[in-house]
Amino acid sequence: MSLNKNNKILIVGLGLLGGSYAEALSDKGFEVGALDVKESSIEYGISHKLISHGQVEVTKEYVSKFDVIIFCLYPKLFIEWIREYQSFIKPNTIITDVTGVKKWVIEELDGILREDVEYIGAHPMAGKEVYGVENSSKAMFKPANYIITPTSKSSSSAVEVARSIGELLEFKTIVELTPEVHDEMIGFLSQLTHCIAVSLMTCKESEHLVSYTGDSFRDLTRIAKINENLWSELFILNKEELINQMDLFLEQFTNLKEAINNNDLDKMKEIMRLSTKRRSYFDK
Amino acid sequence: MSLNKNNKILIVGLGLLGGSYAEALSDKGFEVGALDVKESSIEYGISHKLISHGQVEVTKEYVSKFDVIIFCLYPKLFIEWIREYQSFIKPNTIITDVTGVKKWVIEELDGILREDVEYIGAHPMAGKEVYGVENSSKAMFKPANYIITPTSKSSSSAVEVARSIGELLEFKTIVELTPEVHDEMIGFLSQLTHCIAVSLMTCKESEHLVSYTGDSFRDLTRIAKINENLWSELFILNKEELINQMDLFLEQFTNLKEAINNNDLDKMKEIMRLSTKRRSYFDK
Repeated sequence: MSLNKNNKILIVGLGLLGGSYAEALSDKGFEVGALDVKESSIEYGISHKLISHGQVEVTKEYVSKFDVIIFCLYPKLFIEWIREYQSFIKPNTIITDVTGVKKWVIEELDGILREDVEYIGAHPMAGKEVYGVENSSKAMFKPANYIITPTSKSSSSAVEVARSIGELLEFKTIVELTPEVHDEMIGFLSQLTHCIAVSLMTCKESEHLVSYTGDSFRDLTRIAKINENLWSELFILNKEELINQMDLFLEQFTNLKEAINNNDLDKMKEIMRLSTKRRSYFDK
Repeated sequence: MSLNKNNKILIVGLGLLGGSYAEALSDKGFEVGALDVKESSIEYGISHKLISHGQVEVTKEYVSKFDVIIFCLYPKLFIEWIREYQSFIKPNTIITDVTGVKKWVIEELDGILREDVEYIGAHPMAGKEVYGVENSSKAMFKPANYIITPTSKSSSSAVEVARSIGELLEFKTIVELTPEVHDEMIGFLSQLTHCIAVSLMTCKESEHLVSYTGDSFRDLTRIAKINENLWSELFILNKEELINQMDLFLEQFTNLKEAINNNDLDKMKEIMRLSTKRRSYFDK
């Protein structure tokens, strides 16, 4: 199945990401509906033309209208929704998500998802430091990466649907990774960096340092302003990988600390040369 | 002594910072000269009107012309220059610098500097990831902080001269800190952040991660592209403070790691709420 204009798309969870998905897909001519626990979010979505319709109550009549369902929920809520309401889903519906951890989601769904509904994982690597449908904007996808995480069981048509969504949302790059590689990569690039930023920011009562702060400290702590409910859940659901990445960082940091402690200039310079070389790959 | 237009200013070390100081001071109508080991840097400075004159050779005839000398050298080179050439300096000259560590410089000078020459420490918290006089630009001071580090022995006229320089360079803020507070603050805000960035960047051969990298990793590693000669020297000269700050960070990081390892959601959320609250001070 490749996505076509007759396909009706349901967004479950009309927040920042859900609203932005809805905006982009509605603008491309799709009929987009939404479910959200907040009536005000549905009203906002309709009045701002992000969605054609939506409701708070989860009913079979509504859910069974759709050919594709995109879950824009926290990971555990996503799984709970499936447990409670999957019987409402029309057979052969493709479901996908925006979840930042993949192995856990796939393992959970493996035991419970109906055989006639297929899940294909996707992770839009986009976000803002604000929340809610009122802040949604399809523009945030343009510079971002979209990762599809098929397993050996995924059908090519499900992967096609996920890819179509990524294209309709106009992500800068669309790539496929196994769930395992995805989770390791996210553990390193995203979760570890948030752990570092949070730890640095909690070191000191730093209000008095504001006037002396240059870009370095600001850059390293930008993501220390963090949604504690979402991120604590993501950290726990990818715990094994994240702890591995934290240990790897600890090893490097301790290594540098020892070089400094021992006045080992050669070692320090070697480390800095490696760091400079590796950072050069990332120059835009 | 307050700086006036008749005062001749000597820049020792016409690199990125020295060139930018020279540009700003020449533009304000001062006669600015320079000493640099590279003939090409002096030539560039003259042809681009950063300086009125300059030379490679350090002579008594040249050095004794100036009323204020600004050392834009690595810390150890600065001290070596003083040992070798301070006899050339005119009595009552004020000397200042751009050095990123202060206690060490003051301790070194304490034993050697002539009684009729006064040193007042200053630290322009500005920089770029490029080097050399060709990249100099007085614009880099506009958004930056300038820290003067007087001791109990500093004369008010020396502090006045340093303050005038900060004003002429149009720094956003000019503050005074004791050398001790300066070094602790720099150990935390600048040196620790560079240690973190370098350690994160050396964790993995990460060329293959470029296409998946969002802003978080880019932000945290921007300063991992580092001048290994300058920074290894700065780290060693502020070793005690830096190791303290590294230990403080390690404690916080390990604390968060344990909370994750123990599935301690309450603890994780508490840490993240603190981090979010503290980061909010830094919102521009």
